[in-house]
Amino acid sequence: MTTIAKDNRVVTLINVFTVEPARQQQLIDLLVRVTEVTMRKLPGFVSANIHKSVDGTRVVNYAQWRSREDYEMMLRNPAATTHMREAVTVGQPNPHLYEVAEVIPRQAD
Amino acid sequence: MTTIAKDNRVVTLINVFTVEPARQQQLIDLLVRVTEVTMRKLPGFVSANIHKSVDGTRVVNYAQWRSREDYEMMLRNPAATTHMREAVTVGQPNPHLYEVAEVIPRQAD
Repeated sequence: MTTIAKDNRVVTLINVFTVEPARQQQLIDLLVRVTEVTMRKLPGFVSANIHKSVDGTRVVNYAQWRSREDYEMMLRNPAATTHMREAVTVGQPNPHLYEVAEVIPRQAD
Repeated sequence: MTTIAKDNRVVTLINVFTVEPARQQQLIDLLVRVTEVTMRKLPGFVSANIHKSVDGTRVVNYAQWRSREDYEMMLRNPAATTHMREAVTVGQPNPHLYEVAEVIPRQAD
């Protein structure tokens, strides 16, 4: 289970992949494999949360890293970059790094 | 605090707004106000989680609703649509509805 909170000491990568619906599941399987084989063992990895759009055209990885430095170190890791090049053949990524600005729960009844 | 889990009984709206960096904070403030004044009172609203990109060019609302039907009912709610028209004057939205496909935590040390 992953938690989103304003005071979490993490940075958040939200990577929105645009994908052909026929290849959506292939991309999900690839991202799950990359995360299990490589990403989760890297320093500062906290979690990856793979989301599948109902309309078939998107896959989102909502991932948490301990710090921006850990995320940037991953970008220079040869195993990670090899896997990411593989993902790009299946879907078009659009990654940005985020902070949590606000968490607003349901109003108490 | 919001939780992401594969067995959560929610649907997830990920709405990626593209924004001029000079207006990023204005958009965040607007989305927080819309959520507090309108969204959180609607049937089936679970949480909104407003994210601010480090590069200034994006704002993401990661929102959970109880069901697709509740989300679609919100889209027809006059107060909600009025507020959304206001947001569109500040940033360009790109909303998609998602299911959680996989949650992968850090490997145990």
